Amino acid sequence: MSSDLGRRHLLQAGAALGGGLVGWSARDLTHDRGAEPADAAPAPAYGGEREPFHGRHQSGIVTPPQAHALVLGLDLRSGVDRAGLARMMRLLSDDVARLSQGRPALADTLGELAVLPARLTATFGFGPRVVAELVPPRHRFDFAELPDFATDRLRPQWGQTDLVVQLCADDPVTLAHTRRVLLRDARVFARVRWTQEGFRRARGAEPAGTTMRNLMGQVDGTVNLSERDRDHDRLLWSDLPGLGGGTFLVLRRIAMDLVDWESLSRSTREHTIGRRLSDGAPLTGGAEHDAPDPHAVDDRGLPVLDRAAHVLRAQPQKPDERFLRRPYNYTRDEADPALAPDGVEAGLLFVAFAADPVAQFVPVQQRLAEQDRLNEWVTTIGSGVWAVPGGCSPEDGDYVGRELLGTPAL
Amino acid sequence: MSSDLGRRHLLQAGAALGGGLVGWSARDLTHDRGAEPADAAPAPAYGGEREPFHGRHQSGIVTPPQAHALVLGLDLRSGVDRAGLARMMRLLSDDVARLSQGRPALADTLGELAVLPARLTATFGFGPRVVAELVPPRHRFDFAELPDFATDRLRPQWGQTDLVVQLCADDPVTLAHTRRVLLRDARVFARVRWTQEGFRRARGAEPAGTTMRNLMGQVDGTVNLSERDRDHDRLLWSDLPGLGGGTFLVLRRIAMDLVDWESLSRSTREHTIGRRLSDGAPLTGGAEHDAPDPHAVDDRGLPVLDRAAHVLRAQPQKPDERFLRRPYNYTRDEADPALAPDGVEAGLLFVAFAADPVAQFVPVQQRLAEQDRLNEWVTTIGSGVWAVPGGCSPEDGDYVGRELLGTPAL
Repeated sequence: MSSDLGRRHLLQAGAALGGGLVGWSARDLTHDRGAEPADAAPAPAYGGEREPFHGRHQSGIVTPPQAHALVLGLDLRSGVDRAGLARMMRLLSDDVARLSQGRPALADTLGELAVLPARLTATFGFGPRVVAELVPPRHRFDFAELPDFATDRLRPQWGQTDLVVQLCADDPVTLAHTRRVLLRDARVFARVRWTQEGFRRARGAEPAGTTMRNLMGQVDGTVNLSERDRDHDRLLWSDLPGLGGGTFLVLRRIAMDLVDWESLSRSTREHTIGRRLSDGAPLTGGAEHDAPDPHAVDDRGLPVLDRAAHVLRAQPQKPDERFLRRPYNYTRDEADPALAPDGVEAGLLFVAFAADPVAQFVPVQQRLAEQDRLNEWVTTIGSGVWAVPGGCSPEDGDYVGRELLGTPAL
Repeated sequence: MSSDLGRRHLLQAGAALGGGLVGWSARDLTHDRGAEPADAAPAPAYGGEREPFHGRHQSGIVTPPQAHALVLGLDLRSGVDRAGLARMMRLLSDDVARLSQGRPALADTLGELAVLPARLTATFGFGPRVVAELVPPRHRFDFAELPDFATDRLRPQWGQTDLVVQLCADDPVTLAHTRRVLLRDARVFARVRWTQEGFRRARGAEPAGTTMRNLMGQVDGTVNLSERDRDHDRLLWSDLPGLGGGTFLVLRRIAMDLVDWESLSRSTREHTIGRRLSDGAPLTGGAEHDAPDPHAVDDRGLPVLDRAAHVLRAQPQKPDERFLRRPYNYTRDEADPALAPDGVEAGLLFVAFAADPVAQFVPVQQRLAEQDRLNEWVTTIGSGVWAVPGGCSPEDGDYVGRELLGTPAL
């Protein structure tokens, strides 16, 4: 783990220093005499920065979150067997190995769009049906879809799929091009069921390390599994046979009733969450990263935190009820007034990674479904879980999922 | 003009230096001890940068293009008269005056999302029906919708609307919040017919001044009306009564057949456009900003440029056939295979500003519709034109459109 990390940081530093325009001449692709007034403050361009694709783990998990995400849910076409899935994973792995390093994919005729990876990552996952039907018995494991939680209002259009591909980058043009390349190569094997687009603050808009805010205006993601946590590796990486270096991805599409939410008083919103709006600190005092005190009382002896406040209900009750959150905001035109009274569905793509979602994620979500003041304003309308294989090596013919599928180098 | 520009640059510099977190404590809103590894290279955050809202011209026209755009097409509700439109414009102008400077709008309860304007601009325009029915006779002018061009395949869902609001910013969270605020205040007056989302390279991903590439991989926007051009003001700003400091906005939604386009040889694509893919230089030589030579011949005496090459057909035939282009890329999930064989509609939001679109834009588009090798791979599916009033002053009660509508301060 630590050597992986060391290498990652080294490569990042190298990309930042070296420019990262690999295989294409920087002179061909940049211009300093554009037609537009050059009144922006000059800053080093970060488009060339690269995240490593190869390694023990897939990229896009512990990668510091990029500004943009495109999450694709795909279903395998009928008749695609284990060998077919392996061929598809070989193609897609090769595509991302190149694109993430600023090189065009094979037969990528729009290669000019490939020169700025902007920290592009791709994270591939297999759904329960794939594990049950295409993973060989020696690697098969008990893998059910997530249970229905009482507060869920799931819409099939955002449901469980055979495959998930989480694409992230700091640049939306890079993501658009990457999606095209991947869908072209996946087309004969799979069809897209849904696409979920997410965004955070743009790269560089605010200081690095700032916890993101969701579209409710709240600081979101304060309590998170950190690489500095001694349980990090155990809680994140699976040790199931065939899944070494892998994990599980949980995606929940959480729609927000912003029209109602923004009509509430500031105090009501703060007590619903249990945190200050201004800086995300618990209402019981301290700063953002301090723990809330469920026993704190005010001057009159009354509890500061409502027992149903989101911050308390979401708190782990056992040390293992923790996971790595990597959420994105989303908006989408939506004609259904039940979902979007003002025509815009807005919410959170809750993305979480855990070695064992049943032990780590499900109890937390059960508790929130039982009672959480926030439930009045948020509704989960999509849900899925996927096994995320470990990463692949740069050796010729390796690809994501090869160990789990037990298939040969291709 | 020049003093406007001077002030703009001064304000930008001030924002960059001063931080731009107006009315909110920067300490409350930033954190340097986030849970995420701080391995990004430290760079000054630009989220606080502000574009001026008040002035002779609206913002978002000569503003160097931001990374993200949300263009909203709205129709007035039945019964909304001139006074109603004025009230709406008063509310929306006030909202943007605040939000663009990093301050929450009035009754903006999610003000934490308003602190990073990231060069937010809003550009408002009135469609032909509004000019014909709500503008007083002394300011009314002959203003027809754009003609149908032979190659257009217009879809009503992307058609002409009563109003257009072009929102631009370098940050997608800022845009999402701004849209919410504006739609909330517009709701009783107008309904949204369509929303068109656009993107360019992220702020800072490539050097400032780089001409953007569209999703076909081509450099797009090389030939453009520049502030350094002596005809700039005459070709951009209208002198119609009531429209002083204003202009016209043309929006064309141009879908691209990327599946077919990317199957072409590099040479075919270059000859279709008439420019090199690598750097956008004309095939007749030189660099990006050099003019193509329609008479150049190759070693065998054959013309280098096809007479139907896009670069030649798009060239102005008269000095006034020029306008300010400010395009954005777009992608959108689309189920209709005629439009998107791979499920993703991709293309260009062609946004152009001109003092007289009939004299400046229509002849160019007519010529392209008659003959342009590119027509085989691009189809305009949406079209509209709007009169863009001049800017408003910071005086109490002023708003965009007041002069044109002849309505009082409110």
